Amino acid sequence: MKEYIVHHEWKVIEDGFHPDYNRVSESLFSLGNGHTGQRANFEEKYSGDSLPGNYVAGVYYPDKTLVGWWKNGYPEYFAKILNAANWIGIRVEIEGEELDLATARVHAFRRELDMKDALLTRSFTAELPSGKQVEVLARRFLSMKDKALGAIRYNIKSLNFSAPVKITSFIDGDVKNEDSNYDEKFWMELEKKASDQEAYLLMETKKSGFHVCHGIGTRLLKNGKNLSAAGPKVDREKYLANTFVVNLQEGEELLIEKFAAINSSLYISRNELMSETEKSVQKAMAAGFDQLFAEHSKCWEEKWEAADIRIEGDVAAQQGIRFNIFQLMQTYTGDDERLNIGPKGFTGEKYGGVTYWDTEAYCLPFFLGTAPQRVAQNLLIYRHKHLQKAIENAQKLGFENGAALYPMVTINGEECHNEWEITFEEIHRNGAIAYAIYNYINYTGDREYLAPYGFEVLLALSRFWAQRVNWSDVKQAYVILGVTGPNEYENNVNNNFHTNNMAVWTLKYTLEVIDYLKKEQPYLWEELVNKWKFNEVQETTNWKEIIENMYFPYDKELDIYLQQDGFLDKEIIPAAHLNPTERPINQHWSWDRILRSCYIKQADTLQSLYWFQEDYDTETLRRHFDFYEPITVHESSLSSCIHAILAARIGREEKAYEMYLRTARLDLDDYNNDTEDGLHITSMGGTWMAFVEAFGGIRVVNGQLHLNPFLPKSWKGYAFRLNFRDSHLEISMANELTIINHHPGTLTLSIWGEEHILNGNHKLEVEIKQTL
Amino acid sequence: MKEYIVHHEWKVIEDGFHPDYNRVSESLFSLGNGHTGQRANFEEKYSGDSLPGNYVAGVYYPDKTLVGWWKNGYPEYFAKILNAANWIGIRVEIEGEELDLATARVHAFRRELDMKDALLTRSFTAELPSGKQVEVLARRFLSMKDKALGAIRYNIKSLNFSAPVKITSFIDGDVKNEDSNYDEKFWMELEKKASDQEAYLLMETKKSGFHVCHGIGTRLLKNGKNLSAAGPKVDREKYLANTFVVNLQEGEELLIEKFAAINSSLYISRNELMSETEKSVQKAMAAGFDQLFAEHSKCWEEKWEAADIRIEGDVAAQQGIRFNIFQLMQTYTGDDERLNIGPKGFTGEKYGGVTYWDTEAYCLPFFLGTAPQRVAQNLLIYRHKHLQKAIENAQKLGFENGAALYPMVTINGEECHNEWEITFEEIHRNGAIAYAIYNYINYTGDREYLAPYGFEVLLALSRFWAQRVNWSDVKQAYVILGVTGPNEYENNVNNNFHTNNMAVWTLKYTLEVIDYLKKEQPYLWEELVNKWKFNEVQETTNWKEIIENMYFPYDKELDIYLQQDGFLDKEIIPAAHLNPTERPINQHWSWDRILRSCYIKQADTLQSLYWFQEDYDTETLRRHFDFYEPITVHESSLSSCIHAILAARIGREEKAYEMYLRTARLDLDDYNNDTEDGLHITSMGGTWMAFVEAFGGIRVVNGQLHLNPFLPKSWKGYAFRLNFRDSHLEISMANELTIINHHPGTLTLSIWGEEHILNGNHKLEVEIKQTL
Repeated sequence: MKEYIVHHEWKVIEDGFHPDYNRVSESLFSLGNGHTGQRANFEEKYSGDSLPGNYVAGVYYPDKTLVGWWKNGYPEYFAKILNAANWIGIRVEIEGEELDLATARVHAFRRELDMKDALLTRSFTAELPSGKQVEVLARRFLSMKDKALGAIRYNIKSLNFSAPVKITSFIDGDVKNEDSNYDEKFWMELEKKASDQEAYLLMETKKSGFHVCHGIGTRLLKNGKNLSAAGPKVDREKYLANTFVVNLQEGEELLIEKFAAINSSLYISRNELMSETEKSVQKAMAAGFDQLFAEHSKCWEEKWEAADIRIEGDVAAQQGIRFNIFQLMQTYTGDDERLNIGPKGFTGEKYGGVTYWDTEAYCLPFFLGTAPQRVAQNLLIYRHKHLQKAIENAQKLGFENGAALYPMVTINGEECHNEWEITFEEIHRNGAIAYAIYNYINYTGDREYLAPYGFEVLLALSRFWAQRVNWSDVKQAYVILGVTGPNEYENNVNNNFHTNNMAVWTLKYTLEVIDYLKKEQPYLWEELVNKWKFNEVQETTNWKEIIENMYFPYDKELDIYLQQDGFLDKEIIPAAHLNPTERPINQHWSWDRILRSCYIKQADTLQSLYWFQEDYDTETLRRHFDFYEPITVHESSLSSCIHAILAARIGREEKAYEMYLRTARLDLDDYNNDTEDGLHITSMGGTWMAFVEAFGGIRVVNGQLHLNPFLPKSWKGYAFRLNFRDSHLEISMANELTIINHHPGTLTLSIWGEEHILNGNHKLEVEIKQTL
Repeated sequence: MKEYIVHHEWKVIEDGFHPDYNRVSESLFSLGNGHTGQRANFEEKYSGDSLPGNYVAGVYYPDKTLVGWWKNGYPEYFAKILNAANWIGIRVEIEGEELDLATARVHAFRRELDMKDALLTRSFTAELPSGKQVEVLARRFLSMKDKALGAIRYNIKSLNFSAPVKITSFIDGDVKNEDSNYDEKFWMELEKKASDQEAYLLMETKKSGFHVCHGIGTRLLKNGKNLSAAGPKVDREKYLANTFVVNLQEGEELLIEKFAAINSSLYISRNELMSETEKSVQKAMAAGFDQLFAEHSKCWEEKWEAADIRIEGDVAAQQGIRFNIFQLMQTYTGDDERLNIGPKGFTGEKYGGVTYWDTEAYCLPFFLGTAPQRVAQNLLIYRHKHLQKAIENAQKLGFENGAALYPMVTINGEECHNEWEITFEEIHRNGAIAYAIYNYINYTGDREYLAPYGFEVLLALSRFWAQRVNWSDVKQAYVILGVTGPNEYENNVNNNFHTNNMAVWTLKYTLEVIDYLKKEQPYLWEELVNKWKFNEVQETTNWKEIIENMYFPYDKELDIYLQQDGFLDKEIIPAAHLNPTERPINQHWSWDRILRSCYIKQADTLQSLYWFQEDYDTETLRRHFDFYEPITVHESSLSSCIHAILAARIGREEKAYEMYLRTARLDLDDYNNDTEDGLHITSMGGTWMAFVEAFGGIRVVNGQLHLNPFLPKSWKGYAFRLNFRDSHLEISMANELTIINHHPGTLTLSIWGEEHILNGNHKLEVEIKQTL
């Protein structure tokens, strides 16, 4: 845990230089606009510890799998988001001596990320080994308006010398991934060109054949005047630079403006990439930093208007929630259904792949609640586009008749993970994908989604479950053997409650969807039946048989569902009794010890109870919570959010608050000592859920919005925004509960169990009932 | 499956050149003498497919672990037996054109391995691209008398040319392992020297620091006369050669004799390695090929006298059993307790490490039955020497108080494997190590072994089991969670019958041993108690509590022990119903599918019933066999032997014979299509067990030898040899059963349930009762 980040409502601030935490800061101050993103590396040379990171959405490399012992069915390649060309580079040499914060004496260092308008600012004075002192102010953003653009304004002032200064502004495509399995580089140069102020580099990724063009335009100003000080261009393999030489007098300031355009073949055909990039750079040069920033800033204003959460009386919590929301908005903008939300977003390499079930389970609610409907929809369509590959994946594992198993980790629909207990066995991910369809429709009411997209996925998932169960003579029931549940501290178990539950629920929901389609869209339905060779009678009869006869592990005495068969054979000892020096256990215990212990990495049985909480009375939820929560070690970042929500639901205010805090400042305080690898982006969706569902008590039941808010004792008030169907709500809790509907539609909603009608553009004030 | 090896009683024969099977032949024709061994690579250049292999016993390299996803507790290094210098090389150039069977036209090729005296012979005529024809006869052996020596006699005759012939006789230490994880080379040159006829190369292994000196001496003879035709020496890094140039007339024959000495720092100190190797080479040169071979041959005669098995009326079976015995004798001679029996012996690289539980479970009986007592004892002492490391290994996994977990795979006592489900969970290996102590003492009567060695190991194993169990409130019994049994097609299961059984048995046996030591060796006992801080009352009370209350999965209806908890939840479908195109399933099914199927890789519950067969009546064994055998796919080479023995025990002659055949010619016919990687050495011990225990019906019960032999229908007769305590028996089955005791001691033994007394140097003839 580190606590060097200054608390501030809107900003992330590093005050004073922390070179030891440089990788952590590089993660925390990352920028992104959904199409490109980058770690907060320095513009000028830095010879200290750093993880260079520039990422272009959807551009990946299938790295050859690294494995100790091969298992039949493993994928041969492991797609990774590539570290792409570094375009921010501005080398500063003063009389041949280079500015490098690792060798200079640094004073008054301050790094700020203003979340309001996504501007990264860095200021410092540096004394070079020769004694020359400079003052630097660097500002940078990735345009949220024009997603291809980035801009830098870099001021450098001489404090105590008069000397020639050489500026080298470059694109460097000769980069590699730190996590390259075999230490290969993944990029090839195709074409490049440069003029005095501009440089363009067109590259291709090996194997995957993506084309990416980086263009930069650089200009220098002194005393407000454009300088034409172009020196020689530098041209190496995968590298181009413009150089400028300027005489700087003591007290004078040089201003460097650098504009970049980054275009990929996802959006522009290879032949036009160079010329389009040129146009972009030249347009940006013409518009200038201030105008580009004003446009960018306006986009962020709109985003915050839709998604901000305010907390009164707790700056740390305020900063935490905004940081989570900010990073989610930087990572995914929802305008391209080929993209998704990587566990590290654009902030690091770790985990490779992009899409885990995290998206469906933890991120979808945020985008449902804060973004236009098509954004959440695109997250679902992403999976629909991968349906054929998910069917092929299941075939590889022995399934047939159009059964689909979605990959555990993927970029393009192909599996990117190779631990058998996860790749092959963590099949509950199929359940999360089905649940997301239900969740989307329940929230938006958009049943039109079913015929063209939703049903096809549900059918393939149901076919998977129907083949994945087997009949147990001993139990006289259907069982699901050999799975890993969400709690990855159990492997290859039988009858994981959550997995069995998701199987049955998926079959039931698919049957409901079929009823709906048959009734409401009979012609489309007939097409679907033919397209998928759906033997309705036979298949649905089988499904009903499974629904009726599924086995769920259950203990009579405790009156709870068991996480899996045999769970109570374990010694049940509360995690509080663990030796603190042995935590987190995954860094201290061998895997077998973890597996045979009772300790739970993240909500598993509780994940099901959370999703289907209307099916259980509070007493039942409480019994399960009281059994499972004490043995849960939350060593997944995705655990606390579910616990916060359930704790609130059963009236445990303090536990809810404790669990919420664990997730909200996870990265800002580097809770797990791994923020250097990148931010926990998908867990940030969980933070939002925890806020809105635990404190706001938001649920959508049968299409109706329910609120059951409470105000944690240590806060004076809070307010959050929510899209719900035709309404856009601003919900404030302080001395009373206020709900403003900023849209014109009328909404019927349930507050603390009572129905209220809120007209469009009206405000509702409700006296607070302390329900917890 | 390949069937190109000619059937012969004493020889392995390849008739005609099979370059496609060259790697298979290189494995099958391997030579070894327990201290060094080599694949049957060619002396002259061969540019076709080949796996070069020369191995020096006990000389290993800790290669950095290759792993996809690291788990806490994995070993950082994976010790591998190194491919060592190639000393057999004899390059043949005729007027600058090199002899290479991959580019020449080859006629009359024949490769023979005479198992009687371990001589490899290869003969062929080859037409070079220029049209020149040569006839070659090459013979080679690794001396069983002087384990440092190898010798080659290489005759080459001109059939149709007169020309200068250049012979290059070399040592090449610039070799690598094909299974090197990171493509590194493992050897460094230290020192070398050469004279006209000799060359010496002293090398060191990286990291592990072993020193190995290779020396060669070469001489040429023409028409029976020594030639002094030395050409220039060749000296490159890790490489030395003597060259010779001779004019050969049409019809003339050149004879090359090459002698090698291979010494390692296991036996000779670094400073003396070079000089001792020189002495060896010069002694060998003085003695000559014929004398060395005569001495070598005599050693093999003695070995066969102790261990031969004859089968009348079935040449394939005769060749098969002799091949198994021959390779076991080549691999392990038992004179050094630091050595052990690798799964591939000296015949290939695969699997790295050396020692698996295979040694205790499948190889020990062979050495007990055919070699001097110290040989089997040294196999046990090997583990005793590793006790401290096994204790440290257990500590790494969270155990304390001197509990030991022996590695799954090891060379020097450290774990060499990194799949969690095996490394951490296949703990029944501890049971096999305990059983081997019992087996050795039961067979030899050598209870003196207990105080200095046996008890210490048993104590550490018992301490392990006592900590590895936990109390289940639900079952009101002790359980063992999260294990992998011998059947590796199940991972991380609970209450594997065999594992639970071995745990309880080990505790019981340790208690017996304690009783014995307290009574018979009270002073030594006191020392042991102090040395190991053994709290006898507390620890043994706990053990007894566990013995009394261990849980065993059992099905009432079937009246059988279940392989593990929940086994009957699986669909039980006989393996005979499997689609033949999907077998072996481990090459066609994904791992999850294998895991949730009922199919068994190798005997698991049956392994326990085999070991403790006196504890069960025949009907019980039959019930278990009839349940488990049909769902066993024998995809481990260690499966059939146990099934053969149990089949015989329950009167299934045909099944016993079928299972025996599966194991006996496994490599000769390349049954599993993997002989190219090396031979299945440890499974050869299983073949011997299957013969002696299934057909001979040999058991030792309470120290008494029991015979229950039967003659398979297709054989005319068989005979085998057996050491048993003071006796050396020759047991023949044909029209009657004859037992000759070649030693002077008197033996009381049970034959078909009746007691007989056999005096020393006497013969016993017994009328055959068909008991099956």
